[in-house]
Amino acid sequence: MRTAIFFQKKKIKIKKLFPKHSFKKDIIVTNIKSLNTAEKSDLTFFDTIKYKNLAAKTNASFCITKKKLQHFLPLKVEKIIVDNVLFELANVLKQIYPLADVDYPDLSLKKPNLKKFPSVKFSNNVLIGKNVKIGKNSMIGSNTIIEHDVIIGKNCVIGSNTNIKNSIIGDNVIIQDGNKLGQKGFGFIPLEKKNFKFPHIGKVIIHNDVEIASGCTIDRGSIEDTTIGNNTYLDNQVHIAHNVKIGSNCMIAGQVGFAGSAMIGNNVSIGGQAGVSGHIVIGNNVKIGGGSGVVKNIDDNQVVMGYPALPLKDFIKNSKK
Amino acid sequence: MRTAIFFQKKKIKIKKLFPKHSFKKDIIVTNIKSLNTAEKSDLTFFDTIKYKNLAAKTNASFCITKKKLQHFLPLKVEKIIVDNVLFELANVLKQIYPLADVDYPDLSLKKPNLKKFPSVKFSNNVLIGKNVKIGKNSMIGSNTIIEHDVIIGKNCVIGSNTNIKNSIIGDNVIIQDGNKLGQKGFGFIPLEKKNFKFPHIGKVIIHNDVEIASGCTIDRGSIEDTTIGNNTYLDNQVHIAHNVKIGSNCMIAGQVGFAGSAMIGNNVSIGGQAGVSGHIVIGNNVKIGGGSGVVKNIDDNQVVMGYPALPLKDFIKNSKK
Amino acid sequence: MRTAIFFQKKKIKIKKLFPKHSFKKDIIVTNIKSLNTAEKSDLTFFDTIKYKNLAAKTNASFCITKKKLQHFLPLKVEKIIVDNVLFELANVLKQIYPLADVDYPDLSLKKPNLKKFPSVKFSNNVLIGKNVKIGKNSMIGSNTIIEHDVIIGKNCVIGSNTNIKNSIIGDNVIIQDGNKLGQKGFGFIPLEKKNFKFPHIGKVIIHNDVEIASGCTIDRGSIEDTTIGNNTYLDNQVHIAHNVKIGSNCMIAGQVGFAGSAMIGNNVSIGGQAGVSGHIVIGNNVKIGGGSGVVKNIDDNQVVMGYPALPLKDFIKNSKK
Repeated sequence: MRTAIFFQKKKIKIKKLFPKHSFKKDIIVTNIKSLNTAEKSDLTFFDTIKYKNLAAKTNASFCITKKKLQHFLPLKVEKIIVDNVLFELANVLKQIYPLADVDYPDLSLKKPNLKKFPSVKFSNNVLIGKNVKIGKNSMIGSNTIIEHDVIIGKNCVIGSNTNIKNSIIGDNVIIQDGNKLGQKGFGFIPLEKKNFKFPHIGKVIIHNDVEIASGCTIDRGSIEDTTIGNNTYLDNQVHIAHNVKIGSNCMIAGQVGFAGSAMIGNNVSIGGQAGVSGHIVIGNNVKIGGGSGVVKNIDDNQVVMGYPALPLKDFIKNSKK
Repeated sequence: MRTAIFFQKKKIKIKKLFPKHSFKKDIIVTNIKSLNTAEKSDLTFFDTIKYKNLAAKTNASFCITKKKLQHFLPLKVEKIIVDNVLFELANVLKQIYPLADVDYPDLSLKKPNLKKFPSVKFSNNVLIGKNVKIGKNSMIGSNTIIEHDVIIGKNCVIGSNTNIKNSIIGDNVIIQDGNKLGQKGFGFIPLEKKNFKFPHIGKVIIHNDVEIASGCTIDRGSIEDTTIGNNTYLDNQVHIAHNVKIGSNCMIAGQVGFAGSAMIGNNVSIGGQAGVSGHIVIGNNVKIGGGSGVVKNIDDNQVVMGYPALPLKDFIKNSKK
Repeated sequence: MRTAIFFQKKKIKIKKLFPKHSFKKDIIVTNIKSLNTAEKSDLTFFDTIKYKNLAAKTNASFCITKKKLQHFLPLKVEKIIVDNVLFELANVLKQIYPLADVDYPDLSLKKPNLKKFPSVKFSNNVLIGKNVKIGKNSMIGSNTIIEHDVIIGKNCVIGSNTNIKNSIIGDNVIIQDGNKLGQKGFGFIPLEKKNFKFPHIGKVIIHNDVEIASGCTIDRGSIEDTTIGNNTYLDNQVHIAHNVKIGSNCMIAGQVGFAGSAMIGNNVSIGGQAGVSGHIVIGNNVKIGGGSGVVKNIDDNQVVMGYPALPLKDFIKNSKK
């Protein structure tokens, strides 16, 4: 995946980030990443035993974790033992990425410079941020805002009144009217007087041939990215929370909602107004009936319906009682 | 109903559209319509036995259908026998209406020419397409986009940040902020690498005295129109898919969703977050409780609730178990 | 709460409003308020026995009510006995507030006068109405519309394509992209040919440190205000109907909907796609599972889930049947 820098990043050494902890060497933290994507001199975090297998293989140099989880991590990883992993993580994110916890308006927006985009068609009042890249033969509808550093592929059609930020969009993607992509997700550390906003440093990645109807909201990832696979189609008013990963060739009907970090396979079809809980894993070739509430993982090739969602046969049996 | 041409239409003879089939006469196809609205020299389609009665009475000259359905059609209709009716239909639509499968931005948009609309009040940054008609004493809010050929009646108030295309709107209609009307619906032929987008050549028709709150999406019809009857009121964030027909004097509460081709009678009230499945027929004077999922037709005068929706008595009985 | 006048108000004497009724003195009606907020020379209304305790203590000078409810009101209150309280109320509201039943576009909108807002940062194409006040260090995103008389506190960040009217917003409030605040709610007297629109003279009041994600709709109150308490966070596509009151420190996940006049306590968390019926009262520290439908009041400290929502234990027991 091509790289793009959406958030200003500060170079801070590990001892400055955690002055109460001791470290073998005081180096600059390159980045903050998840257990499985972190590399040398990155900082990661490990908060729940669910991820112990990923923890055992992490390449991160530093890991924020709890006392009782530390022994799952490789010896070479320097452990930062805390009481509240997510709070400490949010705190460090805020120091390294000071502008990722609030969606400040992009003050670099301008009318598109047509010399820079010779084969792109812009309708009226389009606003384009710094360093935006748009591929050949793409079209952008009126009143649409593409914020700084966004990358849009070729042969895309973006509708009107749509806002795109912190996103990388493939080729042949259609995004209709009134969509919002790349805004901060719903993540914070609840505190009684004033919540601590969790900085969101992830992106939205839309692969090729995707179609997004109207009035959808797709939040960027918190640490990882929010992604939508090739040839997946979304209907109107779909809500996709931070870190959700949807595979290829999916069909998502109107008003479906995905809570944070849900993972959806390929060739999945979901009926209107269904909801998928956070951190749920749904396999390939799954069919989910309209209005269902998915609260458990679903294996490949299942057909489910209901609230909570059950195998279709059981749903029909229950409905006849 | 007044006519308006929203999509460029090509004149193509029937043999060019179906080179592998033989026809008595090689004439230009006037239009592509549903079984009951098609007239002489129109092309129609017949895909499911459910519509055998309409098929028997169609006035179309040509009909795309399956081998085992052909005998329901009148003798005079020339049958085009195929394996996948909807795919062939989409294919022909794309040839006759080459620009109806993607919502390309309207490049004819301009600031309103006040001489053309002497009694209309425009707020700031309104954009109006070619051939738009707006009746006396109507008002259009800021940042609102009315695309080419849209017709709006008199005494209408259209809010801000609203997009209207491919629509015909009656008199005394109120449409609040952030609505999207007339965009392409969620229709395509699923193909593994790249879906085939179903061209949508229908309109949205809003009758008199309708009120639409904020953040609603109303898709245009695929072959037929999407219609909303007189004096029907929609609350916020309602989703109306392609071809839905809603009668008069209905009350549709917030976040209700209608899947494609649902038909709703008159004097129907629907509580918040209810959903209506595709192709469902709901009678007159029906009351549907909030959060219900309607998956079966409902006769006149029924009160239903639940998921799936049941007569209210049964719902209450079940809830007490 | 600071005062702001959002709707033109006519000075009309009580006898002119109700020519068929007799009154001790013919005075100008100061305002129309609810039973518990009305003061001397105000007009109130009393339609259901549910509010008999409030009725007994009202300070209003006049009250529209039904024959069989009148004896609950204090002696000093002049009773206006009618058959349909809400219809008469709507009628009087329309006379005193002739412009509150339809959201007419604000024709006072202009580009912000930077001299008036020296420490506010405006992105592109922002539109500001007459008498708008914005506090220090606030930022307003592109294409956003702030209508006349709106008050926004200090250190707020308002996103792009957002519409705010008839609202008073505290300090440190974050409102992301594509939100609509302060529009007329879904209130009308159903009449067969043409509904009578209920004028909405209330406001939206957002307290300090609130965060509102993207694509939400928050209607203004009809007679009272719609309010959101300190440090409450809303996720994307939340729908808040007229008169809803949400307490402090609440967490409302994506696509949740609140019907009119629901009252939510403090420290309440609500999962995605849940719905709350009209006039429901939810206590403090309540947890409501995703997808639930709340149709009954909930006491403090309860955890509920399901449709209709039940205590969590009962929901789990039922799901295992």
